[in-house]
Amino acid sequence: MPIITLTTDFGLKDHFVSAVKGAIHSELDQITIVDISHDISPFHITEAAYILKNAYKSFPKGTIHIIGIDSELSPENKHIAVLLDDHYFICANNGLISLIASEYRPEKTVEINIHDAIGTNFPVLDVFVTVACHIARGGTLEVIGKTITDLKMIKGITPIVNVGDKQIVASILYIDNYGNLITNVTRKFFEDVGKGRNFKIMARTAVFEHIYEQYSDAINFDIEKSKREEDGKKLAIFNSSGYLELAIYKSNPRTVGGASSLFGLHYQDTVSIIFEEEDV
Amino acid sequence: MPIITLTTDFGLKDHFVSAVKGAIHSELDQITIVDISHDISPFHITEAAYILKNAYKSFPKGTIHIIGIDSELSPENKHIAVLLDDHYFICANNGLISLIASEYRPEKTVEINIHDAIGTNFPVLDVFVTVACHIARGGTLEVIGKTITDLKMIKGITPIVNVGDKQIVASILYIDNYGNLITNVTRKFFEDVGKGRNFKIMARTAVFEHIYEQYSDAINFDIEKSKREEDGKKLAIFNSSGYLELAIYKSNPRTVGGASSLFGLHYQDTVSIIFEEEDV
Amino acid sequence: MPIITLTTDFGLKDHFVSAVKGAIHSELDQITIVDISHDISPFHITEAAYILKNAYKSFPKGTIHIIGIDSELSPENKHIAVLLDDHYFICANNGLISLIASEYRPEKTVEINIHDAIGTNFPVLDVFVTVACHIARGGTLEVIGKTITDLKMIKGITPIVNVGDKQIVASILYIDNYGNLITNVTRKFFEDVGKGRNFKIMARTAVFEHIYEQYSDAINFDIEKSKREEDGKKLAIFNSSGYLELAIYKSNPRTVGGASSLFGLHYQDTVSIIFEEEDV
Repeated sequence: MPIITLTTDFGLKDHFVSAVKGAIHSELDQITIVDISHDISPFHITEAAYILKNAYKSFPKGTIHIIGIDSELSPENKHIAVLLDDHYFICANNGLISLIASEYRPEKTVEINIHDAIGTNFPVLDVFVTVACHIARGGTLEVIGKTITDLKMIKGITPIVNVGDKQIVASILYIDNYGNLITNVTRKFFEDVGKGRNFKIMARTAVFEHIYEQYSDAINFDIEKSKREEDGKKLAIFNSSGYLELAIYKSNPRTVGGASSLFGLHYQDTVSIIFEEEDV
Repeated sequence: MPIITLTTDFGLKDHFVSAVKGAIHSELDQITIVDISHDISPFHITEAAYILKNAYKSFPKGTIHIIGIDSELSPENKHIAVLLDDHYFICANNGLISLIASEYRPEKTVEINIHDAIGTNFPVLDVFVTVACHIARGGTLEVIGKTITDLKMIKGITPIVNVGDKQIVASILYIDNYGNLITNVTRKFFEDVGKGRNFKIMARTAVFEHIYEQYSDAINFDIEKSKREEDGKKLAIFNSSGYLELAIYKSNPRTVGGASSLFGLHYQDTVSIIFEEEDV
Repeated sequence: MPIITLTTDFGLKDHFVSAVKGAIHSELDQITIVDISHDISPFHITEAAYILKNAYKSFPKGTIHIIGIDSELSPENKHIAVLLDDHYFICANNGLISLIASEYRPEKTVEINIHDAIGTNFPVLDVFVTVACHIARGGTLEVIGKTITDLKMIKGITPIVNVGDKQIVASILYIDNYGNLITNVTRKFFEDVGKGRNFKIMARTAVFEHIYEQYSDAINFDIEKSKREEDGKKLAIFNSSGYLELAIYKSNPRTVGGASSLFGLHYQDTVSIIFEEEDV
């Protein structure tokens, strides 16, 4: 039996998440349900897209992902089920799987049409659970919807490159639990544009000239610990998701502050990467 | 094997929740444990009653619900196990299941008496887990307690109707993750009193003359998206739990504010519904 | 199949926790994963040590505990796997299991050496999951590391006793969900030093001359409820974990405040226990 995961902006206090779990358990004995996140900022498609992209890959092929963010059915917001990289995604067609779909071509996308006359204001419970259980029992997508080809994509997930490849104009895609700033620049994008040239990353007043592989690479362990300045040390790194991240070594946003508060940068703010002219 | 659910005010940081789960897993192989909520405000019976009422129904018949809110045993706070609507509830007799018991008559209620001389300040771990595992293994309530008939009920869960049925004096029962305000008026109550008359819902300075079925019903999709005023649009709706809710379309209490902050209304505040005189 | 638990400072919003769960489910069918806590303050070893000590005991023998706090590999922070009190702990050698190891002698400790050339900045996913699944399948510690003998211990977990046993200089070890203050004084430590003498516990301006067994012991139920002063009543208690705790009866730190805010005491602040001179 495949795993079902849940990604929502429901929060963990209300009954929404547990009602969904109860409904799944009522339909399927022995099913394993895993929470991806329920703390997505309300209606925040980009946050959900980033979290989902980094989480889904760890799950076995065939896993079914229910995504409950901005999922109310309306003329502009249809329900879809997508087979993509051997995983199933059930959500509204509002850009939630853009980051994954920009890497993998969907194998199949259907617009869900089991609603009949259901007017529901809890579509995750009343529609998505039914679809997920249908798939978990081995049902096909064709049974629950009609094939479509256009998947809505969100904007701002790809950085802009200036003429002559001298500069990448990037932006903040996500801020994590440690207050670290994740940009929309992947390692591949950076290397394709940079081609090994020296660079300066400028994030407001903070400047970085090196990108590390591990947080602790920023620390010089040859210096005795008491003499090192490691607290609050700023660094740029390719994080475990492959994105360029601006971080503070061992930061705590609840006390001393994280990169977000210390650099004064928030979601969608600009980060500029300037490459050095090559000598001719 | 039935499912065991947990509803507490323990929060998710401390060891309390996981200690309880570990103890259940130590007694029962293969048990499925589902969290309903651990973020109930400390000792807040009404919040727990509302969340529990809306969550339990989705679970299979026979599910065992452990509720750890204000559960310390005292002369005024006894431990009970209740069979109600084919679900088991284990909690203190302090009103936690009032909202459910106001709809369904308990089939059996026992006052738990397995304590002997146990003086514990972690009764969920030391008493409720034992009771839950006993029931999960097929044990009867009679073995762990003596039958009682009076279940404590909380106040404020039913609105007041003024003489002549001209007005419902309601109050805020709960505020959800989106900052939306849930009143103590159910659809049935509203329809029984209103009998189809026109009405005005007055919540401080906000006034509503229509109750929607879906959040998006408040939006006119015939107008082009860029010209619509949908952000911050206020609406009254019967929510998925069947309660009258005052909401902001796509609100985010962490940024622009939700209905609670925008209308200036909090838990237990009054909402008035005035019905029009019928023409004679 | 043993249970795997997770204790981290990842928070529940980011993808970190679910990525780890997905990876475990990809390796092991039918595994049960239980969250101990993901809300440890970032890099806070003492908090994690306290929570872990109180949670692990409830789990069955043979449970495997993954602990992801300050786990990046560095010359000063090695990865270890420890068998202790019949439980397995996988973490960095940074003091996380000090509180447990101060009670039980580790049966076996190995320094993990499966890294080869893995330079990872997500060691919980890339290293700890592999080790946990190896152990869950019945593998031995010798296969994944070399035996070591020194386990790093944290400071401040044992109170100081003044000359002549007249005073215990204790400190705040942890503040729980209710705002209650947990000191580093265990019941055994208190009784060994106090030997039944009268005492005064001084926590800034608050003074306690009695230690209760249950929170409700502080309330006199012979007085009619409406005439009792129980709200905000302060008390000292040996909590369910066996530690001396300074508490407010039915406190709510989000509204009226808890012991921490009301007494003005925080993590690591001093609490003094003075014992009376015995008459000669």
